[in-house]
Amino acid sequence: MPEMHKLAKSDEMAHYLSNRTSLGLYPPKNWPNLLQRAYKQVAPKGFNYVTTTMCGSCAVEGAMKYAFMAHAANSRGGIEVMPTEEELSSCMMNQLPGTPQKAILSLKNGFHGTLLGSLSATRYGSIRKVDIPAFDWPMAEPPAYRYPLEDNEEFNKQTEKDSLDDIAAKIKEWRDEKGMEVVAVIMEPIQSAGGDHQISSDYANKLRKMTKEMGIYMIIDEVHTGVAATGKFWAHEWWDLESPPDLVTFSKKFQASGFFYSDELKQAIPFRQFNTWMGDPVRTLIAAEQNDIIMKDNLIDAANTSGAYFKSQLEELARNYPEMMANVRGRGLCLAFDIRDLETRTKMIAQLMHNGVNSPVCGVSTIRARPCLYWTPGHTDVYISILEKTIKQCM
Amino acid sequence: MPEMHKLAKSDEMAHYLSNRTSLGLYPPKNWPNLLQRAYKQVAPKGFNYVTTTMCGSCAVEGAMKYAFMAHAANSRGGIEVMPTEEELSSCMMNQLPGTPQKAILSLKNGFHGTLLGSLSATRYGSIRKVDIPAFDWPMAEPPAYRYPLEDNEEFNKQTEKDSLDDIAAKIKEWRDEKGMEVVAVIMEPIQSAGGDHQISSDYANKLRKMTKEMGIYMIIDEVHTGVAATGKFWAHEWWDLESPPDLVTFSKKFQASGFFYSDELKQAIPFRQFNTWMGDPVRTLIAAEQNDIIMKDNLIDAANTSGAYFKSQLEELARNYPEMMANVRGRGLCLAFDIRDLETRTKMIAQLMHNGVNSPVCGVSTIRARPCLYWTPGHTDVYISILEKTIKQCM
Repeated sequence: MPEMHKLAKSDEMAHYLSNRTSLGLYPPKNWPNLLQRAYKQVAPKGFNYVTTTMCGSCAVEGAMKYAFMAHAANSRGGIEVMPTEEELSSCMMNQLPGTPQKAILSLKNGFHGTLLGSLSATRYGSIRKVDIPAFDWPMAEPPAYRYPLEDNEEFNKQTEKDSLDDIAAKIKEWRDEKGMEVVAVIMEPIQSAGGDHQISSDYANKLRKMTKEMGIYMIIDEVHTGVAATGKFWAHEWWDLESPPDLVTFSKKFQASGFFYSDELKQAIPFRQFNTWMGDPVRTLIAAEQNDIIMKDNLIDAANTSGAYFKSQLEELARNYPEMMANVRGRGLCLAFDIRDLETRTKMIAQLMHNGVNSPVCGVSTIRARPCLYWTPGHTDVYISILEKTIKQCM
Repeated sequence: MPEMHKLAKSDEMAHYLSNRTSLGLYPPKNWPNLLQRAYKQVAPKGFNYVTTTMCGSCAVEGAMKYAFMAHAANSRGGIEVMPTEEELSSCMMNQLPGTPQKAILSLKNGFHGTLLGSLSATRYGSIRKVDIPAFDWPMAEPPAYRYPLEDNEEFNKQTEKDSLDDIAAKIKEWRDEKGMEVVAVIMEPIQSAGGDHQISSDYANKLRKMTKEMGIYMIIDEVHTGVAATGKFWAHEWWDLESPPDLVTFSKKFQASGFFYSDELKQAIPFRQFNTWMGDPVRTLIAAEQNDIIMKDNLIDAANTSGAYFKSQLEELARNYPEMMANVRGRGLCLAFDIRDLETRTKMIAQLMHNGVNSPVCGVSTIRARPCLYWTPGHTDVYISILEKTIKQCM
């Protein structure tokens, strides 16, 4: 991108690169402008606040910490009420009452990061979890969708209901049997690493209603799904939630990392969430420019248009090779399909690479398409012809 | 720094800025050169390996994860031995045996970060810990040094012995009473946030011997203390350890973040510690340049020379105003002194700011000096005269 190259050579960038700031104490002069362009310009509906971090796992853990702090503030009588002396001294020993026994619920196959807190909520990729201590937090079953969605409505309604029931049951079990309050549910709009399954609007609205009734928070982890690829800037915007989630995390494609939080989650006591860097002006400047480009070039609309053609071509291929590929799914340029088994997928990935296409995978036997936002029907035609050739070679 | 400005405008920097890489999968072509200049050039004695991260808390948690993984690999029979199916499935539920009940021991007043795992080891700053769940890990007493060190040798020997005894007792208590193995001790060479107390070489060597005998790891957290300011590149080099620590973390002044680890801690199974960014080529490039500058300008020697003069002037001031300041301590340009009480310090910090000096604080009533590496005796004279003026104004 010529704009990015120009930005990289700019005096403002040179300034941030050669003077690393402690952002929480000494924000750069242009910070209000950067906040506007990088974060407010694209904030999900209902969000007036953002906290920036250094990486995606940090974003998730920051969101978790805000949920824990807000939950405690509520039971204490408000965000201005200082913790008691007993709470402040006991927390230094990691003991009650200052250090609470509280939990975050996540869904099976969800992926939320690999630091010790976020890894406790991650439920995909055992080789990253094994041997590492974790919090005793509950895991619930996600909907196990069947595709195509339109041919499996009854089954999918039931699997969504089962998932919501399981979430409610796990929250109750942890409270009644372990004495541990669940303060938040964290989930991805698309279980990405876990197999590219998109949560439906009906499910998400029911879950939002349930969390509201229970007085717990809803954290939407958009580290993987954010930034236009689904055909909305944020994937969860597809849900048209009656009331917005409480926290939304971002990183990866966003270039900068952090989380948006609702007015209710705001903190009043200083230094509760504080560290040396508190995010990165360099990455914020890049995010600001990227957002400007996305708006100027209408890349969200483009993702919808070119994604619709791409999906239709994948569906046609699936119809022509039903013994090889199935379950084409997704929105915009966040598409995926299943290969008949893991062995065939492994073979296909190697052959695709040989034929010039580097393909990401997820779930058990899924291949993802995650092209860049400038993807056109022309690119689709090239990809589909290579994919078809590869299928024939691997049949 | 003209070199930094030139670097910021370089084509290599522009490339890293406009093409954010997934470093674990697609390292840039120049990565071996950067690894050499940024990390190997300054690796502490005994370290051949480094893993890069995005921030200091991530560095600490990465080091903790390596300690947990190595501990598990040892009991499994080696790093090539795959975890069992039972371990791999149980860890997805955060349950034994895949998710172990193991602990990291840290010292009272130690500061190791603010994410959920690192915060469990942090024992300073209750407002950051309160309301956040933490692992039930042990805390031991650090040495409670009296100053000047040379006048309190007997007391200080005893407080060091008490601290080592307490560490041994806590490890035993956690194992025998909670069934929880401590796999590592984490400590700072200088308890920085906790009041600027430098651990002695004798204490560190005894602790190293003790951890070796117990078969547990020693993590030296140099996030705050690294990069030449103490008069060695790494503060723990002052200890002349008979055998090096197992892990050393870095961030802050280093510009890039991560941890060094010994050959014994190496992992063999891929993707055990893996995430999207795995560190930052932009910050690595800056760290490389910074290291080159530190070596070229002999800034380590300079920190010793100008630090010795600075310390002598602080000591003279303490002799002249014994009712106001005491306990001048530190090495190189990592210096500190105590003000008679918190109230006076608060007054002095405001007055220092009024007189043109922004002063960091730590501990209970400590003021720190943390000048840049180009600090000269001339700067010292300016600082001392302002400090003396401020003392008189606040008496």
